[in-house]
Amino acid sequence: MNAMDPLPLYRQLASHYLNAIDNGTLAVGARMPSVRTLMARHSVSLSTALQACRELEQQGVLEARPRSGYFVRARTRALAPAVEPVLHVADPAQYVGIHERVSAITARSLQADVQTNLGGACGAPELYPNEALSRTAQRVLRQKPMLFGENAPHNGEPSFRLTLAQRALTHGMQLTTDDIIVAHGCVEALNLALRAVAQPGDIIAVESPTFFGLLQILETLGMRALEIPTSPQTGMSLEALQRAAETYPELKAVVVVPNFQNPLGSIMPDATKQALVAWCEQRDIALIEDDTYSALTNDDVPLRALKAWDKTGNVIHCASLHKVVSPGMRLGWIAPGKWLARCQMLKYAQTRPNEALNQLVLADYMATPAYDRHLRRLRQHLRTQRLQVADAVAAYFPEETRLSVPSGGLGLWVELPDQISSREVFERGLDQGIRIAPGMMFSNSTRFDHFIRLSVGLPYTPEVERAIRALARIVDRMGRVAA
Amino acid sequence: MNAMDPLPLYRQLASHYLNAIDNGTLAVGARMPSVRTLMARHSVSLSTALQACRELEQQGVLEARPRSGYFVRARTRALAPAVEPVLHVADPAQYVGIHERVSAITARSLQADVQTNLGGACGAPELYPNEALSRTAQRVLRQKPMLFGENAPHNGEPSFRLTLAQRALTHGMQLTTDDIIVAHGCVEALNLALRAVAQPGDIIAVESPTFFGLLQILETLGMRALEIPTSPQTGMSLEALQRAAETYPELKAVVVVPNFQNPLGSIMPDATKQALVAWCEQRDIALIEDDTYSALTNDDVPLRALKAWDKTGNVIHCASLHKVVSPGMRLGWIAPGKWLARCQMLKYAQTRPNEALNQLVLADYMATPAYDRHLRRLRQHLRTQRLQVADAVAAYFPEETRLSVPSGGLGLWVELPDQISSREVFERGLDQGIRIAPGMMFSNSTRFDHFIRLSVGLPYTPEVERAIRALARIVDRMGRVAA
Repeated sequence: MNAMDPLPLYRQLASHYLNAIDNGTLAVGARMPSVRTLMARHSVSLSTALQACRELEQQGVLEARPRSGYFVRARTRALAPAVEPVLHVADPAQYVGIHERVSAITARSLQADVQTNLGGACGAPELYPNEALSRTAQRVLRQKPMLFGENAPHNGEPSFRLTLAQRALTHGMQLTTDDIIVAHGCVEALNLALRAVAQPGDIIAVESPTFFGLLQILETLGMRALEIPTSPQTGMSLEALQRAAETYPELKAVVVVPNFQNPLGSIMPDATKQALVAWCEQRDIALIEDDTYSALTNDDVPLRALKAWDKTGNVIHCASLHKVVSPGMRLGWIAPGKWLARCQMLKYAQTRPNEALNQLVLADYMATPAYDRHLRRLRQHLRTQRLQVADAVAAYFPEETRLSVPSGGLGLWVELPDQISSREVFERGLDQGIRIAPGMMFSNSTRFDHFIRLSVGLPYTPEVERAIRALARIVDRMGRVAA
Repeated sequence: MNAMDPLPLYRQLASHYLNAIDNGTLAVGARMPSVRTLMARHSVSLSTALQACRELEQQGVLEARPRSGYFVRARTRALAPAVEPVLHVADPAQYVGIHERVSAITARSLQADVQTNLGGACGAPELYPNEALSRTAQRVLRQKPMLFGENAPHNGEPSFRLTLAQRALTHGMQLTTDDIIVAHGCVEALNLALRAVAQPGDIIAVESPTFFGLLQILETLGMRALEIPTSPQTGMSLEALQRAAETYPELKAVVVVPNFQNPLGSIMPDATKQALVAWCEQRDIALIEDDTYSALTNDDVPLRALKAWDKTGNVIHCASLHKVVSPGMRLGWIAPGKWLARCQMLKYAQTRPNEALNQLVLADYMATPAYDRHLRRLRQHLRTQRLQVADAVAAYFPEETRLSVPSGGLGLWVELPDQISSREVFERGLDQGIRIAPGMMFSNSTRFDHFIRLSVGLPYTPEVERAIRALARIVDRMGRVAA
């Protein structure tokens, strides 16, 4: 590898091996050299070696098999090239509320008779350890007969917060029970974080595209979203963020999903994470991370949180177990750094402490080996389903359709050809009982109107296959009319 | 009764019978004529007759015995006269945040080794049907093995909302399942209501004294509290509210606890309720009610909610089951009237739908006769405990101590003599393991600094008696130092 090359090391490494795959040196089915081998052979760090493999995985060239490593994928259906980042910084003065769009979409979906929901961002119920959780809950109830008569402890159950602090070690964070507040999902955590660091009217930098829930939160709090171009591979562009901060020096906070960004699925490289933490710290801009998806990776190698580099308490870590352990419990948490006291007060004034039962159940369950078995199984299912949905899109959608296949998370971000309106695809899909998330939900601008997000949370049944084919036909017909 | 008398009818009636009691016509232990008898004899309405009895009960002259009626109380320890309303309208321009005080108080209490908590506003755990709820929860879990794997329904479980709508009939409200949103306690409901109708900087009229949680919510939302004088008998003064609205025509909303106001325990008479609803409607000022306590009455005659007179959707009804059925579940709800869509959106953006389990448990439990039996038992316990605490205060505290004994609710509001600092009493109490709620928490002004709120939620054990005697000694000593 060449340190003078303008490309980052991991890209050089990835491109090196891509050549080897393209020219057949590494044939379909061949095992990619292990991460350890890459480190030794090319004198690169663990993080560089891993990132190179993930880059190739995202391009659909490699696939990860748990505890076996990376293998060259059969590319019988050629995947489309990765989506390019869009360089455009929205003017917050021209901010237009997203609520009416999102509400209209939600209302439409609730009225419709949805048979196949590809619009969600959660796994199917059967992917979660429901029976084990139910048994644990029944045991907790028997052991604590007064539970429903007692007020829940402030800031969350200590045993649950201890479990969270222990698990956070894996992602490079040093937290104690006292650093953590339990909240109603990551959504409440983000509300608390934003209310702690900013006031109505303040400007908040967000990824573009981003999770529509975040745009809704900002709107209901009267804050203005400044959308920063975000790469499907490496997440928010630091360059674009810097330029935006020059134009808007009053920028109050940055909100980032560093691992498996929603909807892109991008992973911010460790070096970028570190640089972002330092940049925010220097400028006294609060850095809020939503780390809901990092456990849903293809391999068992843990991704690091932004908080791992935080030395001054300037990073607010928000996360949730809703998509990882139990969609029926809305258990999230926040480690607010230097805003701890303020967030404790806001949580108390907003909803009081979370109920105890679910926290006790998860504290108990997450301490057992069954939890790690569940995580491995969930990752494997999602990996398989992700490839199945991606392959179906590549096979059935018009050739000009583009998508990137992330190495984790719960969705695929698909760019439709010919500027086809995703709102229209959404409406026609609903008529056939199929729900998707149209791209217009993921930005206050119109620039993602020809994108859709497809869930990979459902087992790939013939019904899902039929739904994707039906969507492909809709897109195909609309493209022909447009042409 | 004399219609030309400037006193309201119920007061005339009460004073008529007070004379009869004072002069011995109705001796201690005698049965007060029943409400039906009073209606027939004096040609007054049910509400007037009831209110007269409640007035006498609040003065400590009568006591209610469930399903037997009212009886003349033994007044071996003369109760102090009722607390006078304070006529003073705070200038919202001089608004001072309450958070630091409340947080300091809370932090101090959490550090201390509290043996007897007279500072809470909830019943003791053993007053709630914990085992029945636990059994119901275990059954629901067995019946719905996938519960923890499924997202909870938007706006709350339909079966639970139906139960709430049915129960609301008793309090004069006509609601359907679709009018209701389930929330995390009345606290979240109030957050939603205020965010729906007002913006940061807006002026909101509140009772004075009022529930410190409300002052905290207003502060965290950046809204300004305008404190309206509130009578310990009849609640917020409409006259004072009218004068305040002339001074502050930009008034956006009024928040009222119509039944068993916290901390006063006052009940707003039906005629005042009706007048308040009409007044707010005419001026296009949103009316928000917190009806958390109305089920905790001495008799089984239901109190009416402000919402009962609402014809245009201008009343937002907020309530909770936290103090009535289960302190361990924080289940509240909101019927937002014309702000329904806006509150649905705010709830979704703030915490997403409430988890399903607790809702299913209460929907099930509240449909059984056991729930009504629990309510009767809870009311009886609270009535007994309320009189026991009031008698102990009358017996042990200095003679100039004043208090009113409400006919329901969870607290007693006690005025200390000699302008004794309740903060000081709080501190000295904590040193002896006794927690109270000092009056400074219930206003942004200093005018309640010589009040304390005592919980009546604890069974009257020797320990509670000792705690009240210890508090009395503290107050006594402080009074002597002051004199």
